[in-house]
Amino acid sequence: MKTFECIEGGVTAAQGFRACGVAAGIKYQNRKDMALLAADVPAAVAAVYTTNKVAAAPVQIDRERTRSGRAQAVIVNSGCANACTGETGMANAREMARFAAVALGIDEQLVLVCSTGVIGAHLPMERVAAGAKLAAAALSREGSDDAAHAIMTTDTVDKQVAVELEIDGKTVCIGGMCKGSGMIEPNMATMLGFITTDAVVHPKALDQALREAVDVSFNRVVVDGDRSTNDTVILMASGAAGNQMLTPYHSQWQYFVDALTTVCLELGKKMVLDGEGATKFVTVRVKGARTDEDAQIAARAVSKSALVKTSWFGLDPNWGRVIAAVGYSGADVDDQKTQIYYGDICAYDQGRVADKALLQAMQDVMRKRAFDVTVDLNLGDGEDTVYTCDFSYDYVKINAEYTT
Amino acid sequence: MKTFECIEGGVTAAQGFRACGVAAGIKYQNRKDMALLAADVPAAVAAVYTTNKVAAAPVQIDRERTRSGRAQAVIVNSGCANACTGETGMANAREMARFAAVALGIDEQLVLVCSTGVIGAHLPMERVAAGAKLAAAALSREGSDDAAHAIMTTDTVDKQVAVELEIDGKTVCIGGMCKGSGMIEPNMATMLGFITTDAVVHPKALDQALREAVDVSFNRVVVDGDRSTNDTVILMASGAAGNQMLTPYHSQWQYFVDALTTVCLELGKKMVLDGEGATKFVTVRVKGARTDEDAQIAARAVSKSALVKTSWFGLDPNWGRVIAAVGYSGADVDDQKTQIYYGDICAYDQGRVADKALLQAMQDVMRKRAFDVTVDLNLGDGEDTVYTCDFSYDYVKINAEYTT
Repeated sequence: MKTFECIEGGVTAAQGFRACGVAAGIKYQNRKDMALLAADVPAAVAAVYTTNKVAAAPVQIDRERTRSGRAQAVIVNSGCANACTGETGMANAREMARFAAVALGIDEQLVLVCSTGVIGAHLPMERVAAGAKLAAAALSREGSDDAAHAIMTTDTVDKQVAVELEIDGKTVCIGGMCKGSGMIEPNMATMLGFITTDAVVHPKALDQALREAVDVSFNRVVVDGDRSTNDTVILMASGAAGNQMLTPYHSQWQYFVDALTTVCLELGKKMVLDGEGATKFVTVRVKGARTDEDAQIAARAVSKSALVKTSWFGLDPNWGRVIAAVGYSGADVDDQKTQIYYGDICAYDQGRVADKALLQAMQDVMRKRAFDVTVDLNLGDGEDTVYTCDFSYDYVKINAEYTT
Repeated sequence: MKTFECIEGGVTAAQGFRACGVAAGIKYQNRKDMALLAADVPAAVAAVYTTNKVAAAPVQIDRERTRSGRAQAVIVNSGCANACTGETGMANAREMARFAAVALGIDEQLVLVCSTGVIGAHLPMERVAAGAKLAAAALSREGSDDAAHAIMTTDTVDKQVAVELEIDGKTVCIGGMCKGSGMIEPNMATMLGFITTDAVVHPKALDQALREAVDVSFNRVVVDGDRSTNDTVILMASGAAGNQMLTPYHSQWQYFVDALTTVCLELGKKMVLDGEGATKFVTVRVKGARTDEDAQIAARAVSKSALVKTSWFGLDPNWGRVIAAVGYSGADVDDQKTQIYYGDICAYDQGRVADKALLQAMQDVMRKRAFDVTVDLNLGDGEDTVYTCDFSYDYVKINAEYTT
């Protein structure tokens, strides 16, 4: 895959988009908690949503609205998830979108809505109304930072990425922001992602590109089956760059998909690095698996094992816990053929345990902020990579003290 | 199900069994780390083993040996799991059983072997040999406490249960011991369980009884798919009570199975209570599910959610995390029909959130050492119960510091 240089600008790096973040007082005091992202004209849109059977009201509305392939704005609040809120919640989500539509003077069907925060609470609609007005007036080409801050919940840093590329001789930007800092695995706080591009892209192709990119990025830090009630990734394409319409038949299609993947992957990595209480960024690679599917389930089992995660926190190259996780993952494994590495150092080699003298070197690997754990099953060509973090005291502290 | 009074005696409560625990110096200093359990005569035996694809050497040997339905002794060590140890490990496990057989003067095929501890290390065979001799000489009718202590790893207390019942006018005992104090979900430290009875039971019936009992006890605190490399539960029946042979056609069969289930369930609960860092014993009941299977996957998802577990530790009745876990479990759920209770207090009632005034009462429920969380899906008659614990700072501490 090509690599791309990152530029500043987040969701407003691409031409044709404005954004802002305002303090609407939804739940938090003295901080921005409402973001608005708007395209100058109706844009092509694609989105992926949580697979959780308990889907929040905004997710249900956006699922319906993004079927058209067109959208012009997204209004987002933090502090209240508007989930498990029944008919009132559905009406409130629609109303929130309508407030934005009226303030922007556009069709309410072109407005999407996202919420993140505590489940079960109703949106304070008067504040939402006032916030939407405030936001519409605050939109600017420089608003990406404010927007990225407004969508945060337990996140400790805002998360933005943008890349620049050339398509048909035109400069194209893809930029995005996201929030989410839950444990990612086995549970996650809500993940919201917003990506914009000024490329001209056919809506159906945009959907395909987003699914391809998400599969190797957000879905490698987040398991579908473990999604929250509100998870959403929305991609809008304004078309302002003036390239020829991108579809899989365009000669630079893959180049565009790679750039989009880069944006999603960098955003996903930022979420892992901001994982609640995380002190380590760990790349779990499984190779030599019977199949890619085997590699994937093995990598995920290792990544979500609380025993493995606490051993990383404790700088303990406990490969026994790693192989035990592979063993119960369902993937084919033969412990007499398996190799396990911390960085480049082999801790377990097909039945032979590394010399005690290497323990220090392995701990040096683990002392780094980011390191790799590689499992070679030596059974075939299947491989997969998952990005994850360790499990520290602070994870417990943050989640024990986060109040309903 | 009938209830049974618990008596003292653990694995030696039943007639025809002797046990002991000795300090063999396998890994730990100054503590008992080898247990021997022996029947006076060859006994009927049944066992269940880990489903982990990486099975330790002793598991592989016992699987083979218990097929005969007969066994007379079990030798167990803590401190070394003899897992991922290849052919040497297999030879060592056989040799460990042989040491016991020689010391006891019985056929080595009648000796089972179990190990628990660190993965990848080889057994120190000279110490194993000396330990086995020591153990054979130390066997006694009062040895259950020593045996129960010798099998512990990170356990903080020994775990023993025994019950007495009457079959065909004869007094029958069923007693057991176990070890295991890992997080249970989603990973577990090795669980070993040893149960003895003096009832006369047909070996095939014994197998059926054990599987029925384990399914609603150990398997309700431990998910099959998440088993360690060494998990084993062995049940031996000496026949010393002299009842008529128990099979499913005996009029008191269900009574016997209920008693066995009681022993397994009480042992399972002791494991949860000794869960690493656990401060709460939580019974998660799911009812009103479309099917029992749905209830089971929902109860397990709630029980293994790190977000839910930390909320219990924090005395936070965060029902939103509970319903989110049910939502991604795969079970059918409609948040507008669901009810969630902490003890008897309804936190969420089909779209309505409990009044803030009840928060204090819910926290009072959670302040207890043991409490129930009930989810009523109101979709059908399916129900299931899982026993679990909370997730505290100490879990991280214990697992970060447990050294390879």
